[in-house]
Amino acid sequence: MSIAIQGELGSFSHEAALKMNPQATILPCSLSAEVFAAVERGEVEGAVIPIENSLAGSVSEHFDLLLRHTVAIERESLLRIRHNLIALPGSTLGDIRRVSSHPVALAQCRRFFEEHSKITATPFYDTAGSVKQMMEAGDRSMAAIASAQAASQYGGEIVLSGIEDDPENYTRFFLIRRRDRLQPDAHPDKVSLAFAVENRPGTLVAALEVFASQGTNLIKLESRPVPGRPWEYVFYADYQLSDPEAADAPLKLLASHCSMVRELGRYRAAAGAV
Amino acid sequence: MSIAIQGELGSFSHEAALKMNPQATILPCSLSAEVFAAVERGEVEGAVIPIENSLAGSVSEHFDLLLRHTVAIERESLLRIRHNLIALPGSTLGDIRRVSSHPVALAQCRRFFEEHSKITATPFYDTAGSVKQMMEAGDRSMAAIASAQAASQYGGEIVLSGIEDDPENYTRFFLIRRRDRLQPDAHPDKVSLAFAVENRPGTLVAALEVFASQGTNLIKLESRPVPGRPWEYVFYADYQLSDPEAADAPLKLLASHCSMVRELGRYRAAAGAV
Repeated sequence: MSIAIQGELGSFSHEAALKMNPQATILPCSLSAEVFAAVERGEVEGAVIPIENSLAGSVSEHFDLLLRHTVAIERESLLRIRHNLIALPGSTLGDIRRVSSHPVALAQCRRFFEEHSKITATPFYDTAGSVKQMMEAGDRSMAAIASAQAASQYGGEIVLSGIEDDPENYTRFFLIRRRDRLQPDAHPDKVSLAFAVENRPGTLVAALEVFASQGTNLIKLESRPVPGRPWEYVFYADYQLSDPEAADAPLKLLASHCSMVRELGRYRAAAGAV
Repeated sequence: MSIAIQGELGSFSHEAALKMNPQATILPCSLSAEVFAAVERGEVEGAVIPIENSLAGSVSEHFDLLLRHTVAIERESLLRIRHNLIALPGSTLGDIRRVSSHPVALAQCRRFFEEHSKITATPFYDTAGSVKQMMEAGDRSMAAIASAQAASQYGGEIVLSGIEDDPENYTRFFLIRRRDRLQPDAHPDKVSLAFAVENRPGTLVAALEVFASQGTNLIKLESRPVPGRPWEYVFYADYQLSDPEAADAPLKLLASHCSMVRELGRYRAAAGAV
């Protein structure tokens, strides 16, 4: 299966895609918008995108893109995020003066930087890309923070493993496919949907009341602004199903209260994702 | 009044702080955590922080910090975000090859970059900082995207004004103060609060039902992860008050359904912020 990811080869998305499909051929894209476009144009069979990290929160841009494209969620998967300090082979911790990585990864390794005050953190656009750049520069005073996959991809050496502050660091990934190519799960127990309410008093509460009145087990609720309509929001909700037949009721009821309702996918919850 | 802001002098936060208090003395801080710490330690009388942009969405880090510090919201204010192309005095559009700014500002001026394909967008950590850097470099091929305040702060010249794609671009700012120094509004009509629910089926819906049962006009609802507890969330809600006396009822009712409830402030809604 061909799978698009955002970021360089060796990224956590690459790790997640191989976990979901060990035989996958990976197509790296610089921008998330390109990932979604590749799926929509049929250039790849699917894409694996991070949607939420247990420490950093939601990847807002991916919620926006899910709604804008005719794609749907086929599966979800959790990846434990383990940050590694990666340097040129043979480098030691004492050689290193500058460590680059994505700002979120740097922020998740704050303790490491506190304990190594001679080392400067340098923001870079991508975790795996920071390893690639460090290898190309061939500079012993440089290192990068990224996945083990990135070390093996670019021939870097792991100097320290698991340098993240909080081991309860997981990212939730979606496998998305074009709606007409979706292979739906036969026993879904989780639904993701988006809905928008008009900017009038009481509309948001009326929509939320649907979940309450149905006894829906709402697990996540996220809001995003509507471009061009200040202080109007699209809400993204995940709810659990005890019975696959029960999936439709909240969707139908919401439709009568909302200016827009769209199902983004129904799938099996990943172990530990609730 | 002394006011801390995140970012360099000339930032949109600087503009917002002067709009709220024209006589303010501004203390620029590199990190948002430093801004909150300065307020808490009493080094400044308050801080002005962006909380939400009508296009980019919430500034998640500031929600997290509001909860972690003994500060409260005293006022809110809206600023229309107008992006300007700023260069060395005398530079023309034809001279410019590279434009740096904060990634969010670059993303909000996509049309400008499409129409000027010879110009490369370069991400920088701060909008005003990108003007400062450009002026220091003294390079005619460079420009920056930032506020008019930044141009006057660093002596840059506005080559093009209002280059943002969407004119409906507003940022909502809070003036925060230490809780013991708060000067509360006598006629508040808006409340901001945070609450957390336990990770058990139905807890989120039960909390939301409080707003429904009280006929509360909920205007915004935002969620953030709880560090160290994957897939547990803190929710941030804003609701409108028709009567200042009605502020307490939802707070009290929520307390019986939630593992944590905290009022972040009650204040007058800014014109246009609903």
